[in-house]
Amino acid sequence: MKLATLRTAEGTRAIRVEGERYAELGAPDVGAFLAQEDWREQAAAVTPERPLAGADLAPVVPRPGKILCVGLNYRNHILEMGRELPRYPTLFAKYPEALVGPADPIALPPESDAVDWEAELALVVGATVRRASETEAAAAIAGFSVLNDVTTRDWQYRSPMWLQGKTFEGTTPFGPYLVTPDELPGGATPALELSCEVDGEQVQKANTGDLVFDPVQLVRYASTILTLRPGDVIATGTPGGVGHARKPPRYLSHGARLVTEISGLGRLENVARDE
Amino acid sequence: MKLATLRTAEGTRAIRVEGERYAELGAPDVGAFLAQEDWREQAAAVTPERPLAGADLAPVVPRPGKILCVGLNYRNHILEMGRELPRYPTLFAKYPEALVGPADPIALPPESDAVDWEAELALVVGATVRRASETEAAAAIAGFSVLNDVTTRDWQYRSPMWLQGKTFEGTTPFGPYLVTPDELPGGATPALELSCEVDGEQVQKANTGDLVFDPVQLVRYASTILTLRPGDVIATGTPGGVGHARKPPRYLSHGARLVTEISGLGRLENVARDE
Repeated sequence: MKLATLRTAEGTRAIRVEGERYAELGAPDVGAFLAQEDWREQAAAVTPERPLAGADLAPVVPRPGKILCVGLNYRNHILEMGRELPRYPTLFAKYPEALVGPADPIALPPESDAVDWEAELALVVGATVRRASETEAAAAIAGFSVLNDVTTRDWQYRSPMWLQGKTFEGTTPFGPYLVTPDELPGGATPALELSCEVDGEQVQKANTGDLVFDPVQLVRYASTILTLRPGDVIATGTPGGVGHARKPPRYLSHGARLVTEISGLGRLENVARDE
Repeated sequence: MKLATLRTAEGTRAIRVEGERYAELGAPDVGAFLAQEDWREQAAAVTPERPLAGADLAPVVPRPGKILCVGLNYRNHILEMGRELPRYPTLFAKYPEALVGPADPIALPPESDAVDWEAELALVVGATVRRASETEAAAAIAGFSVLNDVTTRDWQYRSPMWLQGKTFEGTTPFGPYLVTPDELPGGATPALELSCEVDGEQVQKANTGDLVFDPVQLVRYASTILTLRPGDVIATGTPGGVGHARKPPRYLSHGARLVTEISGLGRLENVARDE
C-alpha cells in the first residue's frame, strides 16, 4: 500500500494511492492516520477512485513527533574512505520545520553559501515501541519514503554538533509516498536503488541494502533510548557523492533542479530557490 | 508571574502560581497556554486562591515542539579550561520523551553506567518568531525555568554526535515554574545564581549572567535557522562541575538525590531510580 498527505483548500488529508487514483482516509495527514491502531485495515478498506493527476502533496508526514537522522551509514562509502565500520549509529536530529513536500521549492537561506544534497531512505514508524526486539522493530515500521537531508555545510561545521546545518526551515523534501514493506524487495530491510540528480547529472547512486545499520536495527537502537511513536521518522543516512566532497565543492544555487529517487518509492523533484 | 503545569486526576492543567496559591488558566498545559496570543492578559486576570501544598507538577512544558540545547556556554568554565570563547553556539537536540517533572524520579536506564548531571537555565518561547531582531527576541521569551540536562556519558561519546546521550526517556527534570522576565534581575538576560547538589554536596555553582551566548542572542541565533513557536525550549548550557570531569568520575546511582536550583526560579528535587 501507498499512503500520502494531500493538500486541499480545506487543509491536508491522509490518502491511499493506487496507480493514478486515490481515496481519502478520514485523517488530516499520514502521521495522524498511523496513530490509529487499525490503520492497515482502514487503508485496505478504501477504494482509490479519484484521479491523482495534479495532486499537491505535503511532506508524507508533515509534523513528525521526532525526526532522527543517521550519519555515515553506507558500507561501500565508509570502506572507500579508508575508515572502519562504526560500532554504533551516529544519530542527530532535524525539526519538522525543515520539511517540504515532494515537489515544493527548497529554500536557499541568504545566511548560507553551501547548501548541499544528501539522498536518503527514510522509514516511518507505525506503532508505539520501546526496547523493541527484532520482530517488534520490523513490525513497527509502517513503511518507507524518500528524504533529501539537504544540509547547509557552512552551518553544519560552525560547531562540533551538526544540528544547525541540518534543520534550516523549508530545506528537506520528504515523500512522495509511504510504501509499506510488503510491497518492497527485502521487506523491512529493503534493497532498493537510490539516486540523486542535480540538473540532470547523477551525483549519488547506491543500494539501500548496503546500509551498515539497517532499518530494523535502527528502530531497535533508537527505541532503546526512548519510545518511538506512530509518525516518527528515521532518515537512514546518505551514500557518497555529496557536493561538499567534490573538488572543487559544488552546492545548490538558485534554480537548481534536485531529483531524489528510490526504486519502488517514487521521486522527489525540487527546485532550489533563493529565499 | 509564575506559571506551571499541574497534574490532576483528569489530566494536566496550566496554572498561575502566587506564593502558596494557584489558579487554573483554562489550558491543558503551559505550552498550550502560551500558544494564545493574549496569554499575559489571561494570566494576569486570574486570582490564585487554591492551596498549592502537595501539588504534583509536570514538566513546566510537558511536550515542547522543539527542545534546543546549547553546548559549553559558561565563560569562566571555558577560560579555565584554556579554551577560546566560541564564535557560534553549539546546538543539539533533546526530545520531549526525556522530560520529567520537578519532583519526579530520574530514570537510570540499565543500558548506561554513566548518568551525569548538567544544571541549566532554560528559556521558554512565548511567541512565533523567525529571524528575530534583538527586540523581537527579548519579547519572544515567555520566561525562564530550571532544567537538568542529565546525560548518559557512555552513550554521548559512542558516536561524534551527542544526541543519543542526551535524550534517554525520563531523565531530564524541567520546572518547577516558568517565571516571566519582569520578575528577574536582568530581565530577558537574567543574572541568577545556579547550583547543583548531589546527596547534599554542591557540585555546580555559577551565575547565569556568565553565559557566552545569552538568552536573547540564543533566540536570535536559533530563529535565523527556523521558526520558534510558543512552548519551544532552549536549554542554555551547563557550567563546570559535572561528574564526568572529576577524577575519578562520579555518576548518579540508585537513590542519589539531585537538587538543581536557580535563584528566583525555584528548585528541582529528583531521586535517581534504577529502571
